[in-house]
Amino acid sequence: MKPTRVEAFSDGVIAILITIMVLEMKVPHGETLDALLPLLPVFLSYVLSFIYVGIYWNNHHHMLHATDKVTGPVLWANLHLLFWLSLIPFTTGWMGENHIASAPAALYGGVLLMCSIAYMILQRLIIASQGEHSVLKKAIGRDWKGKVSSVLYAVAIPAAFLSQKISIALYVFVALMWLVPDKRIERALSDWH
Amino acid sequence: MKPTRVEAFSDGVIAILITIMVLEMKVPHGETLDALLPLLPVFLSYVLSFIYVGIYWNNHHHMLHATDKVTGPVLWANLHLLFWLSLIPFTTGWMGENHIASAPAALYGGVLLMCSIAYMILQRLIIASQGEHSVLKKAIGRDWKGKVSSVLYAVAIPAAFLSQKISIALYVFVALMWLVPDKRIERALSDWH
Amino acid sequence: MKPTRVEAFSDGVIAILITIMVLEMKVPHGETLDALLPLLPVFLSYVLSFIYVGIYWNNHHHMLHATDKVTGPVLWANLHLLFWLSLIPFTTGWMGENHIASAPAALYGGVLLMCSIAYMILQRLIIASQGEHSVLKKAIGRDWKGKVSSVLYAVAIPAAFLSQKISIALYVFVALMWLVPDKRIERALSDWH
Amino acid sequence: MKPTRVEAFSDGVIAILITIMVLEMKVPHGETLDALLPLLPVFLSYVLSFIYVGIYWNNHHHMLHATDKVTGPVLWANLHLLFWLSLIPFTTGWMGENHIASAPAALYGGVLLMCSIAYMILQRLIIASQGEHSVLKKAIGRDWKGKVSSVLYAVAIPAAFLSQKISIALYVFVALMWLVPDKRIERALSDWH
Repeated sequence: MKPTRVEAFSDGVIAILITIMVLEMKVPHGETLDALLPLLPVFLSYVLSFIYVGIYWNNHHHMLHATDKVTGPVLWANLHLLFWLSLIPFTTGWMGENHIASAPAALYGGVLLMCSIAYMILQRLIIASQGEHSVLKKAIGRDWKGKVSSVLYAVAIPAAFLSQKISIALYVFVALMWLVPDKRIERALSDWH
Repeated sequence: MKPTRVEAFSDGVIAILITIMVLEMKVPHGETLDALLPLLPVFLSYVLSFIYVGIYWNNHHHMLHATDKVTGPVLWANLHLLFWLSLIPFTTGWMGENHIASAPAALYGGVLLMCSIAYMILQRLIIASQGEHSVLKKAIGRDWKGKVSSVLYAVAIPAAFLSQKISIALYVFVALMWLVPDKRIERALSDWH
Repeated sequence: MKPTRVEAFSDGVIAILITIMVLEMKVPHGETLDALLPLLPVFLSYVLSFIYVGIYWNNHHHMLHATDKVTGPVLWANLHLLFWLSLIPFTTGWMGENHIASAPAALYGGVLLMCSIAYMILQRLIIASQGEHSVLKKAIGRDWKGKVSSVLYAVAIPAAFLSQKISIALYVFVALMWLVPDKRIERALSDWH
Repeated sequence: MKPTRVEAFSDGVIAILITIMVLEMKVPHGETLDALLPLLPVFLSYVLSFIYVGIYWNNHHHMLHATDKVTGPVLWANLHLLFWLSLIPFTTGWMGENHIASAPAALYGGVLLMCSIAYMILQRLIIASQGEHSVLKKAIGRDWKGKVSSVLYAVAIPAAFLSQKISIALYVFVALMWLVPDKRIERALSDWH
C-alpha cells in the first residue's frame, strides 16, 4: 500500500473535522449583536481547535512524506490517530458551551494528550517499518516538541480543576510552540533537553 | 472507467461517514464529568462503528487494488455497498442513545449483515468481470472470514432479543477477527472450513 | 483549467451530499422496532434520492471524460448543477417527514427538474466549447433520456396535487430508466423520438 | 511541499463548506407550500453564499496554479483564509433566520471582509515567495477587483445599521463583479484606479 492513499483518506477526514467543528457554533435566536455574546467562548474554543487540527494536518503530511511504504500496523495506528482527532469537535463544543468550565477544559486536554500519544505511536511504527536508516528518525531528532507537548497536556488536565485559565494558557502555549518556527528557541530547547 | 475514480469517490463517502458518526455524540448540557456518563454507551457504540468502517475502508481498497476495470454493474454494486455503510451512523446513534437495547442492537446487526452481503455481491461482480484468471479470486481464496462474519451477524440479530450482550460480544468478536491478522488462526479456520 | 480539477471538486460535493442526506433520518427516541415505523417514508425518500444522486455522479463523470478543457462558463454551469443537487437533501427530508404529502412531492420534482435543466445547460456549454467535432455531442446523440426525464418531472409536479402516488411512480420510473441499461428499449424510444 | 497537496485539502474544506451551508435550511414542519415561505430569506442567503464560496474556490485555484512551491507562511495564510471562509455558513444562517436584520447583515459583511483580507495576505505571501519575477504578480496586476471588494464590504458593514438593503445590494454587486467577466468594465475601472 502506498502512502498517497493513506494521505488522501486522512486529508479527507481532517478536512471534514476542521469544518464540522463550526457546526457546534449554533446560529443564535436573537437578531442583535448582543445575541452573539454568549457565543464568544464557543468561538474562541473553535479558533484554538482550528489551529490544533491545522497543526496536525501539517505535521501529519510531513511525516507521511518521509514514509515510503505503509504496513498494516501503520495503517491502524493512523486510524487510531484519526479516531482521537475526531473527538476534538465534541470536546471543543462541550468546552465552548460551558464557558470553559473545569471538567470540559480537562477533557479537552485529555483528548489532546491522546492525539499526541497516538501521533507518537504512529511515528514509532513508521520508523520501525523503515529499519535502521530511517529518514523519519533523522528528521524528527529527539522530538522534544512532541514530548514537551504531551507533558504539558498531562499537567493541564489536573490543573483545570484548580483554574481553567492555567489549562487554557498551556493549550495556547503548546499551539504557539508549533506555530512559531523560531529556530533559536528550537535549538535552545533541544540542547537543554 | 478506471478503479481509481471509484476508489476516490468511495474514500470520500467513507471519510465523511466515519466523521459524521461523531455528530451523534451530542454535547451534554451539564459542565461536570457526571454529565458525560450517559454518553458512555454512545461513545462505545461510536468506537465499535469506527473500527467497522475502518475495516471496510481497508478491505475495500485491497479489493479495488486487485481490480483493473470497472463495469456498470460493479459501479452500482459499489454504490449499493456505500448505501448500507451510510446507515451505520444511524444505527450507531440509535443503539447508543438507548443504552444498547434489544431492537437497536438487532438493527445494528441487520445493517452490518447487509453491508457484508453487499460486499460479497461487489466481490463476485468484480471476479465475474475479470474472467477465469481473476486475481481477486485467488487473493480471497474461500473467503471464510466474509462467510463466518455474515453467519455471526445473522445469529446476533435474533440473539439481541434474548440478551443484547450476546449480540455485542459477536460484533466485537467479528471486528477483532478482521483486526488481528493471526496467520495461524486464519489457516486453521481456513482448513476447518 | 483541466477537467480533473472540476471532477475532483464535484466528486467531493456529491460525496458529501449523498452522505449528509442520511442525517435527515433523525435517531428515534423509542427503543422498540415500532419507533422505526414513522421513519419508513423518510427511509424510502432517502433510498430514492441516493439512487438519483448516484445516477448524477455516474453521468457527470462520463460527461467530464468526454471533455478536454474547462472554460469559465462551463465552470459556472457546473457549480449551477451542484447548487440544485445540493437542494436534494432538503426536499428529501421535507418529503420524508410529511409522509410524502402533495407539496413536498411537488417540490421534490421541482428540484429534480432544475437539476435536469442544469445538467442540459452544462452539456450544451461543453459541446459548444468543443466545436463542430464534439465527442460529447456524438456520445449523447439526441439525448432522449434527458429530455423524457425533464418532461416526466414537469408532469409529476402538478400531478402531486391530484395524487402523490402518480408523482412518486414517475420519479421511480425515471430512476429505473437510468439504472436499467436496456439497449432495446433505448433504441426503440430513440427511434420513436 | 507542493501546491497540489494544499489545493486538494483546500478543495476538500471548500466542498464541505458549500455543502453544509444547506443544512442551515432546516426542514419545515408544515406540509403545505406556505410552510416554505419563512425559509425564503434563508434560501436567498444560501444562494448568495453559494456564489461567494464558488467565486473563492475559482480564484483560489487560479492563484495556486500560478504558485510553484508552498512555504510555511503560505501554508498558514491558506489555513487562515479557510478559517474565515468556514464562518460563512454561520453568518449565512444567522442572516437568513432573522430575515436579514441589521446586525446579521453587518456580520455577514464583516466575515466577507476578513475573507477578502485573508485572501490578499495569502496572495502577498505567495508573491513574496516567488521573488522579483513572480508570475502571480503579473497575473493579478493592480488587483483593483480585490481592493474595490474590500472597500465595498467595509462600507456595507456600517450601512447595514441604516438600511440592510444597501448592504445586501453591495454584496450582490461585488458577487456580480466577480461573476461577470466584462473586459471593458475591467479595463475602465483599472484605468480609473
